[in-house]
This record gives sequence, C-alpha cells and structure tokens, in this order.
Amino acid sequence: MAAAPKDHESAIAELALRARAAARRVAKCGSAQRRTALEQMARALEAGRSEILDANQRDLAAAASAGLGAALTDRLRLDPTRVAAMAAALREIAALPDPVGEIVRMWRRPNGLLVGRMRIPLGVIAIIYESRPNVTADAAGLCIKAGNAVVLRGGSEAFQSNHAIADALRGALGEAGLPADCVQLVPTTDRAAMELLLRREDEIDLVIPRGGEGLIRFVAERSRIPVIKHYKGNCHIYVDAAADLQMALDVCYNAKVSRPGVCNAVETILVHGSLAQTFLPQLFERLGGAGVELRGDDAARAIVPALKPASEKDYYEEFLDLICAVRVVDDLDAAIAHIERYGSNHTEAIITRDHRAARRFMDEVASSTVCVNASTRFADGGELGLGAEIGISTTKLHAYGPMGVEELTTTKFVVMGDGQIRT
Amino acid sequence: MAAAPKDHESAIAELALRARAAARRVAKCGSAQRRTALEQMARALEAGRSEILDANQRDLAAAASAGLGAALTDRLRLDPTRVAAMAAALREIAALPDPVGEIVRMWRRPNGLLVGRMRIPLGVIAIIYESRPNVTADAAGLCIKAGNAVVLRGGSEAFQSNHAIADALRGALGEAGLPADCVQLVPTTDRAAMELLLRREDEIDLVIPRGGEGLIRFVAERSRIPVIKHYKGNCHIYVDAAADLQMALDVCYNAKVSRPGVCNAVETILVHGSLAQTFLPQLFERLGGAGVELRGDDAARAIVPALKPASEKDYYEEFLDLICAVRVVDDLDAAIAHIERYGSNHTEAIITRDHRAARRFMDEVASSTVCVNASTRFADGGELGLGAEIGISTTKLHAYGPMGVEELTTTKFVVMGDGQIRT
Repeated sequence: MAAAPKDHESAIAELALRARAAARRVAKCGSAQRRTALEQMARALEAGRSEILDANQRDLAAAASAGLGAALTDRLRLDPTRVAAMAAALREIAALPDPVGEIVRMWRRPNGLLVGRMRIPLGVIAIIYESRPNVTADAAGLCIKAGNAVVLRGGSEAFQSNHAIADALRGALGEAGLPADCVQLVPTTDRAAMELLLRREDEIDLVIPRGGEGLIRFVAERSRIPVIKHYKGNCHIYVDAAADLQMALDVCYNAKVSRPGVCNAVETILVHGSLAQTFLPQLFERLGGAGVELRGDDAARAIVPALKPASEKDYYEEFLDLICAVRVVDDLDAAIAHIERYGSNHTEAIITRDHRAARRFMDEVASSTVCVNASTRFADGGELGLGAEIGISTTKLHAYGPMGVEELTTTKFVVMGDGQIRT
Repeated sequence: MAAAPKDHESAIAELALRARAAARRVAKCGSAQRRTALEQMARALEAGRSEILDANQRDLAAAASAGLGAALTDRLRLDPTRVAAMAAALREIAALPDPVGEIVRMWRRPNGLLVGRMRIPLGVIAIIYESRPNVTADAAGLCIKAGNAVVLRGGSEAFQSNHAIADALRGALGEAGLPADCVQLVPTTDRAAMELLLRREDEIDLVIPRGGEGLIRFVAERSRIPVIKHYKGNCHIYVDAAADLQMALDVCYNAKVSRPGVCNAVETILVHGSLAQTFLPQLFERLGGAGVELRGDDAARAIVPALKPASEKDYYEEFLDLICAVRVVDDLDAAIAHIERYGSNHTEAIITRDHRAARRFMDEVASSTVCVNASTRFADGGELGLGAEIGISTTKLHAYGPMGVEELTTTKFVVMGDGQIRT
C-alpha cells in the first residue's frame, strides 16, 4: 500500500491544496447548506450500510489474521446498530446552533469606530486517530458544522472501513452542492506520509491527534502546525474533611467503575487525614466489591492493611483499568500540591460541604475541568452541554478541556467606520 | 558570553522550572497584589533610570563598533523620555481590568450541574524578540497582569539594556512579595540556548516570537511549545465601485504614509475598474506627492503611464517602505480572490458606500482584522480598545489579530454539583 516517498510528497501536497480550496467554499456557503450537507451525510451512511459493513469485514479479517487483541477488535467492529448511531450523531450535529458568523462582542471606540469579534471557521483541520471507524463520521461532521474542511488520517486496522465511510460522506457533500474535498482521507497510513502532512502549515490550520500517548507524542514532536492534544487523563478526587461520606463513596465508585478505560475515570483518590479512619474501610469495601484493586500509601495501609502498597510511579499512572491509588493528605493544600505534581491537567473533583474549600479548589486547581461534588466522568463535551465533542485539550491554549463545535472556530476583528484614519 | 552546550542545558532547565514555580504563585496571588507589583515595577524603572541608560550606552557603543544601521540603532536607543514611557505603559497595564477568575459563561444542565468557563492564566509565556528594549518591560507587564510568569529572550544588540531593565523589574517583584522569577531573562543570546528553551514543553505554555520573518520561522520550525506568530503584514485596501473617492484617498494616504515601516501599513491597493480612470490619477498625485513609489499592473499603467510596473512578486511583498502596489480589479470577487491568493491574513479594508459590498467583504475576507471605511492602521491592540498589545497573531487559533491581556489567558471548565454521578 505504501507508495514511494516521492509519490507521497505530491499526493500529500495535492490533498492539502484541495482541502484549502474546499475550506473556502464550506466557510462561505452559509448555515443552511452546511446543515443540509450534514443531513445528507447521515442518509448516505444509511444508504451505504452494506458497503461499509463489507469493508469492515475485510478489516476484521485482516485484524484476526494479524492477531489483534479483543479490546481493539471490539473498537474496530461495526454492525447495523453502530452505523445507525453514526448517522444519528450526524443528525444531532446538524441540529446544533451554527457558530459561524456570530458577533461575539462589539464595542464603540471614542473615534466612532465599531469594533467587534466575529466567529469564523479555522480553515482546514487534520484529525489523526487510531482504531474506531466512527471517528471518521463524527470528526467530519463536527468540522463541517463549524465551516471547516477536514483531512482524516485513521489507523491502518480500520483502513477499509474508513474508506467506505469517507466515500459515502464525500458523495453526500457533492449532492449537497459542496466540494467532496471538504472530507478527505489520507490515502496511506504510512508514517512518512503523516510526517509530510504535518509540514503543510500553509494549508492546514490545526492538527488534533487522538489515541495513545505514543501517537500523540509522535505528532507533537514533528508538527509545524499547531497541535491540540491531551496525552493522558490522570484524574483525582479529593475527599475533603467536610465531605458527605455517602456522596464521596458514590462519586468515587462512579468515577472509577462506570467506565475504567476512559480518560475521565479517576486514578487517585486523596483522602483528608481526619476522616481516613472512617472513610477508607468503606471505600475499600465499596470499590473492592466491584473488583477494583486499591493501592495505598503507608498511612492508608495502616488503616486498611489489606491495601496493596502504592509506588511513586502509581501516582503518575493512568491505569485505564480497575486499579486506583489512594493517599492520605493533611489538608487541602497538600491535596492541591499532589495534583500539581502528579496530575495531567485533565479533570479533578473535590467532595466537600465547606464553601471555602470548594471555592479554593475551584480557583487554585488549574486543570481543564474542575468539579465540586460531581463525578470526574462529566468531563465530556456532551455531558457539559457542548452538544458533541471532537476531543479534549490539556494544551492550555485556544481550547482547554472538552472541545465542541465552537472550539473549531476562532474570531476575527471586524471594524466598521465612516472614513476614520489614525492620527 | 556563550557557555558550553552542556551548561546551557542545565541553565535553561533551571530557568524553566523556576518560571513554572513562579507562575503558580502569580496565578494565585490575586488581583490587588499583581496590580501593586506592576506599579512597583513602574517605580523601579524610574528609580533605576541611570543604571538602565548606562547599560544602554554600552549596547550603543557595541552597536556603533559593529556598524549597526541607523534604523536599528534608533530602535535600540533609550533616553529619559523613553524610560518614562516604559514606566507609564506599566501603570496603564496595572489599571486595566484583571481578566483572571472571570466566569465567561455559566449554564445549567438538566441534572442540575452548573457548568461554567473560568478565565485562568496560561502559565509560563516565552517572548522572543529583537532590538527594542522597551519590549522587555511591556511584555513582562502584560504577562504579569494576566497572572503569568514570563521568560524573555531579547536580541544580542540590546543585551545590556534588557539586563538592566529586567533587574529593576525583578527587584520590584520581590518588594511586592512575588517571586522575582516571574520575570526571567535568558542569560545568553546563543541560538543553541533558544533551541533548548523551545523544547521545555512541560514548563512553558506558549511562545510568542516578535521580529523579522527569519527569527519567527526559526522559532516555529523548532518549537515543541505552541507558537503564536505573524510572519508579515501584507495588507490591502479595496476601493469599491461605490467608494467615496475623497475617503478612499484619505484612508490610502493614512494607511501607507503615516508609518510605512509597520505591519499594518497598506502594501497593495485594489481599485474597481469602473472608477480607475478617475481615481488612479488622484491616487498617484496624492501618494506620489508624499514620496510613495506606486507600482501598477498593465491596466493601471494604461491610465497612469508614469506608474512603474508591478511584478507578480510585488503582490506578495511587505515593502515596509514608501512603496505600494496598485491593481485594477473587475469586481468585489476579484478583489477577494486577490487577497486570498497574495494576502497574509493580517488586515484588509474596503472603502464603499454599498451596504451589500461592505457586508460581503466583512463576511468573506478571513483576515484577522477586516475594516470597512477605516484605515488598516487601526489593527493595533490599543486602537481597537484592548488596552495594550503583546503582539499580533495571524495563526488562526486562540487569538487571531491583535492580542491584549485577555489573550494571555485561557478558560477552564468549572462544574458545581451536589453529588451528581454519570449514568
């Protein structure tokens, strides 16, 4: 499949230039046409279901002969329900408010100029992702909604599936009177081609890598285009001295057990010393009963000797599994210091009835989502009310935290005068 | 002055880590203390004036023996008035509203969660700049105002001056009870040290290079940290068929002649064919009278034969001088197409009395500042009402256009619940 490097270069250049030209069209076409295109894309997935499932079967067969693991194979698998869900997601995106053209603010200057900021599309967005083929439709939908063209570079396992999905979406764009090149799939999964793509800073405005830390570091180190990313989600819950213990148990359980393999699951629970004696045995019983392995520091193990010991390394870890570190801390300051040292700027929660502790935690923790008396699992675009999510950023710039349609735009200044000159 | 590479590595690492620690303090210290610190910094520049001017004399002497040009030497020179202006700028920054902690929006979810976005400092900002020593004080002031620590890397010509200014500012921070390391100057202007700095992605959140295109490309190609930049300002004025010709002449004159060496000066004037016959001779007289060399396309030269010919290359050029390209275009679409092809996403203006043309230009031109009936010279943080400016971004992300204090912050999500878990 991999072409010679020279062919890559011209293929990637052409793809980038076509994306740039398509971006101009989709930016200007207006809200109604973008919405029609998204609805047409949903219908095209339904109409193309058998082609998509056939392509997915070829990917699954290749995965089986390559010995791909069960979890990855499950992420890769499509069925009629999953195709229907992709179409439904596109219809939901179509129904979201259009962010393009909004005047975010407008003010008047002493010389009579009206100055405002108008929301505009970013331009061309490249999404680099791994196995899930539904990302192909979701990412394309969100980018188009915000008036952008998208360049998709999926994983090699899902190559046939992604191709079939992209073909359906491109056909729909054409029927809606927009360039098919608003959605393009990179025609090879060769890493050399990806490196070439990451150098097209004149045509591509933003790169969003989604996947394992290795992929993301690869992209971040080579890209000349701005990258929005998160490496990992090492999320914390701090159970304050003034916590409602039943609430703390419920939130910790939800944050670890409801879906341990996702980035907003809790990885370390910090417990205030004054209630460790009461709370830790209950926590051990509640989470242990759900099969969670708890790893504690010396203070925690003195209270619950059955705890496994936690190493320094455990506090940096995103377990993505039914494992959770536990540590006893002296006070709120110690909890915040722990989060600053070991955290990943993703999501942290405090459980407390103390207004002052809640306010300090909210002010002083600089993570992208900070929760008071709520589960870390709410760090999600849909749950926070953004409508849909293209990813999560722990890059402290542009977008920080879950990113929805609005985060795929920027603003330009608009200045309206009647002949003002600068003195 | 350049140390061995190994020494650089530990020096840069230490500087970055100290900046990160200082950033935590200045983020949390509260509005009043940051304001006091800025006022103290202004006083320290006044108190240290003779040391600063002495240091500047040493830089000027070195510049003279190195044969530095007159324009660069003027940028480098400080005098009592310029030191007073630096102090005044810091007091203006001190008086700006504090962006930190603002809840930008807040909404309620169906499950009762309150979700909001709170403005927070970016963290550590590195500013890489060339000869003007006043940038040392301005950039430090803006970064501190927004609750950030700053790492300053100035040009070698201004090394002694920058050192003296930074010393004064650091002393003032200490007196105000903040870490002196909120402001650090990179102790060498060696490019190898700058490359090491650009790799400290764990401690530095944003790099802003200011200077010539060569410096900016050097930074953009090597940085692993997000870079906000603009390469050049190739600004356009489109004189529409429905333009008020006197206004067009006044705005073109202001945009080219008031300060030809700056990035928001006009470089190409596009003239609608229907008024070229009337307008071009007047433009030639008005701008020519101020010493501007106009370079026109064939259509323009058919009307004003005294025009020099414009080459294809001229349309890409940022002249930074009393030179201006002129082109006759068929209509608004041709003007927009010219801007899309040759422009640099900086600033463009239309002169028109036609509401529809004004609206189309405002909507369809994707540059960072778009003006209707106003000079391109207004593309400036102070002029647009941002209070002060750290630079201009033509990176379509985060901040696009002039950047003030608010653009040195981001937002985090804050979530307030009463025990919500995710179902």
